[in-house]
Amino acid sequence: MDIGFVGLGNMGRGMVQALLRAGHRVVVWNRTPERADELVALGAVRAATPFEAAEVGVVFTMLADDAATEAAVAGPHGILAGLPHDGIHVAASTLSVRYSAELAERHRTRHQHYVAAPVFGRPDAAAQGALRLVIGGAPAAIERLQPAFSALGQQQFVIGERPEQAHAVKLAGNFLILSMVELLGEAFVLVEKAGVPRERFFEVAAAVFSSPLVERYGRTLLERRFAPPGFRLALGLKDIRLALDLAEATATPLPIADLIRQHALEAVATGKADRDFAALLEVIEAHAGIGHA
Amino acid sequence: MDIGFVGLGNMGRGMVQALLRAGHRVVVWNRTPERADELVALGAVRAATPFEAAEVGVVFTMLADDAATEAAVAGPHGILAGLPHDGIHVAASTLSVRYSAELAERHRTRHQHYVAAPVFGRPDAAAQGALRLVIGGAPAAIERLQPAFSALGQQQFVIGERPEQAHAVKLAGNFLILSMVELLGEAFVLVEKAGVPRERFFEVAAAVFSSPLVERYGRTLLERRFAPPGFRLALGLKDIRLALDLAEATATPLPIADLIRQHALEAVATGKADRDFAALLEVIEAHAGIGHA
Amino acid sequence: MDIGFVGLGNMGRGMVQALLRAGHRVVVWNRTPERADELVALGAVRAATPFEAAEVGVVFTMLADDAATEAAVAGPHGILAGLPHDGIHVAASTLSVRYSAELAERHRTRHQHYVAAPVFGRPDAAAQGALRLVIGGAPAAIERLQPAFSALGQQQFVIGERPEQAHAVKLAGNFLILSMVELLGEAFVLVEKAGVPRERFFEVAAAVFSSPLVERYGRTLLERRFAPPGFRLALGLKDIRLALDLAEATATPLPIADLIRQHALEAVATGKADRDFAALLEVIEAHAGIGHA
Amino acid sequence: MDIGFVGLGNMGRGMVQALLRAGHRVVVWNRTPERADELVALGAVRAATPFEAAEVGVVFTMLADDAATEAAVAGPHGILAGLPHDGIHVAASTLSVRYSAELAERHRTRHQHYVAAPVFGRPDAAAQGALRLVIGGAPAAIERLQPAFSALGQQQFVIGERPEQAHAVKLAGNFLILSMVELLGEAFVLVEKAGVPRERFFEVAAAVFSSPLVERYGRTLLERRFAPPGFRLALGLKDIRLALDLAEATATPLPIADLIRQHALEAVATGKADRDFAALLEVIEAHAGIGHA
Repeated sequence: MDIGFVGLGNMGRGMVQALLRAGHRVVVWNRTPERADELVALGAVRAATPFEAAEVGVVFTMLADDAATEAAVAGPHGILAGLPHDGIHVAASTLSVRYSAELAERHRTRHQHYVAAPVFGRPDAAAQGALRLVIGGAPAAIERLQPAFSALGQQQFVIGERPEQAHAVKLAGNFLILSMVELLGEAFVLVEKAGVPRERFFEVAAAVFSSPLVERYGRTLLERRFAPPGFRLALGLKDIRLALDLAEATATPLPIADLIRQHALEAVATGKADRDFAALLEVIEAHAGIGHA
Repeated sequence: MDIGFVGLGNMGRGMVQALLRAGHRVVVWNRTPERADELVALGAVRAATPFEAAEVGVVFTMLADDAATEAAVAGPHGILAGLPHDGIHVAASTLSVRYSAELAERHRTRHQHYVAAPVFGRPDAAAQGALRLVIGGAPAAIERLQPAFSALGQQQFVIGERPEQAHAVKLAGNFLILSMVELLGEAFVLVEKAGVPRERFFEVAAAVFSSPLVERYGRTLLERRFAPPGFRLALGLKDIRLALDLAEATATPLPIADLIRQHALEAVATGKADRDFAALLEVIEAHAGIGHA
Repeated sequence: MDIGFVGLGNMGRGMVQALLRAGHRVVVWNRTPERADELVALGAVRAATPFEAAEVGVVFTMLADDAATEAAVAGPHGILAGLPHDGIHVAASTLSVRYSAELAERHRTRHQHYVAAPVFGRPDAAAQGALRLVIGGAPAAIERLQPAFSALGQQQFVIGERPEQAHAVKLAGNFLILSMVELLGEAFVLVEKAGVPRERFFEVAAAVFSSPLVERYGRTLLERRFAPPGFRLALGLKDIRLALDLAEATATPLPIADLIRQHALEAVATGKADRDFAALLEVIEAHAGIGHA
Repeated sequence: MDIGFVGLGNMGRGMVQALLRAGHRVVVWNRTPERADELVALGAVRAATPFEAAEVGVVFTMLADDAATEAAVAGPHGILAGLPHDGIHVAASTLSVRYSAELAERHRTRHQHYVAAPVFGRPDAAAQGALRLVIGGAPAAIERLQPAFSALGQQQFVIGERPEQAHAVKLAGNFLILSMVELLGEAFVLVEKAGVPRERFFEVAAAVFSSPLVERYGRTLLERRFAPPGFRLALGLKDIRLALDLAEATATPLPIADLIRQHALEAVATGKADRDFAALLEVIEAHAGIGHA
């Protein structure tokens, strides 16, 4: 299958590797072209513009946010212009529900297809084709994408025919994950102030949850792996904001998300925007008078 | 081993069954004596008072709260009076850290031992000897209890020498679990208001967490199994209050616990005290204007 | 002085009356032209477009929000096009800080002046020229506006030279006022559940605060004057959102504003968007199981 | 009128001065006897025990909290023992609703009267007889106390016949006042981060509220008068806790009180327990990355 791929960050590069390994021909574009070198060495073809990547007929975007996606979508060198009739744009990034719905409409008026397929999993899972794909779009388009999707993911979850539904699920899922950081952080501080080493508490919590995800986040917190960031705090704040925007648009109070936003804003105000989201722990510790500097 | 056992609720009865099955001799007492009948048929011996159960030399308590425990501990027919020198009182219930520390002191002045061993697991796990035990106390006493503990639990976590440390861990663990109900509830309502069936979202969340505990609580919420209660909402509120009491005593802000207490108080104020703690979902739904009556 | 005035809602009409009474010539425009009839009868001149109102040389806008203001500002018939060199646009509405800063820049590039002058006070105070004006802008422009400002207001507060600073003050002030509704609501519910009539409590609170504003809001709550709205709940939610947007842009956690937003969203989700903001009380009552239907 | 008075802190001493000035005979007791010296010089009579102060027939208590009151009430030298039949105990301190109700019952069974009369006002108002009294109790007893009450207060608010109702009103009132500190603090930080001096904002807020109380608290915050404390932060935290205890007992969520407790606990955890409650501002500032050290 011929696939365009726009956005070669850590996640994007891993996904392209998985697509190449499955035998697909991949035409890649990145704003910073050097990011493509390694993939070209593995057999990828370099495009000069998003337009060229989209000309292939199926194009993935894996970019930081709405704005970065829009920069690749719009304009004479963009995806909307380059994608042929009946072509498919697959948005794999975490986008706002509002923007995702807009994209769906803009592609529709150009007789193009738009499928949302945000993913759960980290760069190593991406490279191994072991992501979880959350998919929204027309069944026929999703069907056509199966060769690509099966190369990328261990599991596919088709949410519904409106692409933005998949982005709503992604945002709610990220909200759950980021909340675990807050929750574990509060529990760690509580037991520590009661005289219990947090490591000892976490052995119990890890056994009770028996969850690889909880295990991983707990370890990140215990080992204070805040830099370099696996997931930047500023990006986590952005995701919480997108969840809250959706909540506001649908008149849904979301108090835990508000709380996490407060803590994340404090983290930004105290210089932690570029650390890992797990550095939220330092905010929680500061509130309890615990210093780990 | 000879073991006294005070408190034959759902958890206590299961634990006694597990002890009997492992070949221990168990002397049981319950405020409502009929609760013992079934266990006597299985070989347990009936005590007339907590004093008699304690005379055995090792006595477990598995009672609703501090007050119920104190009622069995104090007075001429109580455990403090009945337990011989060098005897061991094992508190398996969820107690406040303050009361647990007091018990330790009171037993110490009588040359008795006190071990805290609150448990994670439900009645069926208790009956199968598959609990997780969180243990605090003197190593020698814990060593002497191994025949009982290994009959009761699949895992033991020794937290420290001060018994109340184990209760701190239990309270923090319950806080995590009860918070999952709130978190999943908020996420369910968010996706539903965005037009996504919550069941579909939960398939994704369950895969991302891969946690039997998250799976179980998610299903309880989705299937609205609020009555009869597995864990009464009023008891969950009590546990959150104990966590907050500990937090206050140690000057630890615990904002998620405060939030859950607010929602649990609303649940009580709107008549849900005797439903399952998962009925917190109805509070979250009401805030979003969703009615499932 | 010749003054253009765009936006003839309850506040705008009152302000125009005060300007006319002080002897100014006022050229008015409103999207719904009939709103001008009564003022024309009092001597105002009707403009066909915002452009015409701006041609006068000094033009006030008093419109619902950023979007309504932008609709009057932009385009060939708009204020930017109509205002002469050295003319002054005075924004009296509650605008976002970001948009206010943008307006300042756009006027500057056209060699026009822009002054922010949001107001505190209700329509009756507007008509009596008894508003409080919160002013930001260049001193020379503010000086030129004195004949108009002194007709409108009992007090002027000059905040700084950047116009958007005045809007920041207005947003923070509205946040304080809306928070009083929440605070009084929580206190009313608390005493009532403790068996004290809220009216009796409020006599004490009113004496302790000795504030006409607290008195007025307390009475509104006690008398449940929720419809017709003095200040629509949806508009209050908008103001809280603008405060939170400013907070987010400046990395400032604002937990009480988050709380009020949660309650206001619940009010919207349960059908109270078009009632007075004081209907927030019904949300607080519902949480405590109190029904006043 | 003959009056016993127990508790000679800053408030108590002021109240005794006002009673003496009105011509009453006052028999005073304080745990630290030197506190009485100055009052004895003014004509007060020194009692050796609370019992002796109560023997007079009418006895006020003005002590720090429930525990300090209980220490003066109970035992062979206490008020319960000393107060004659038909005598009146007037509790002027801020007590918990639960304890106040208990006191009422204990006095009743001894054929004594109990009136709650917590006050609003500071030591200087106490000395000038300008307090606001919030009164609960039997009308006949309140009638008998008029000579004392009119010496102490500019205003009396009779809440109801159950004494603890007056304490509920006092707690709700303190909740309002302490919340103003939080509210003003959040607003100050918001405008400052938006580039507006907080003093300038406060001029506007003070005009909008036109409240001596808001004026006073705003000035305390602006001038950072945190030490010596006018009202210790730890005492403010205690009052919030009492309000939350009442809220819990009546199943009333009180989210702003929870928020203030979180901030007050952080203040305690970071060493501010003995500063003025207004030092809460430093917590709010720290969250926004503002340092005023």
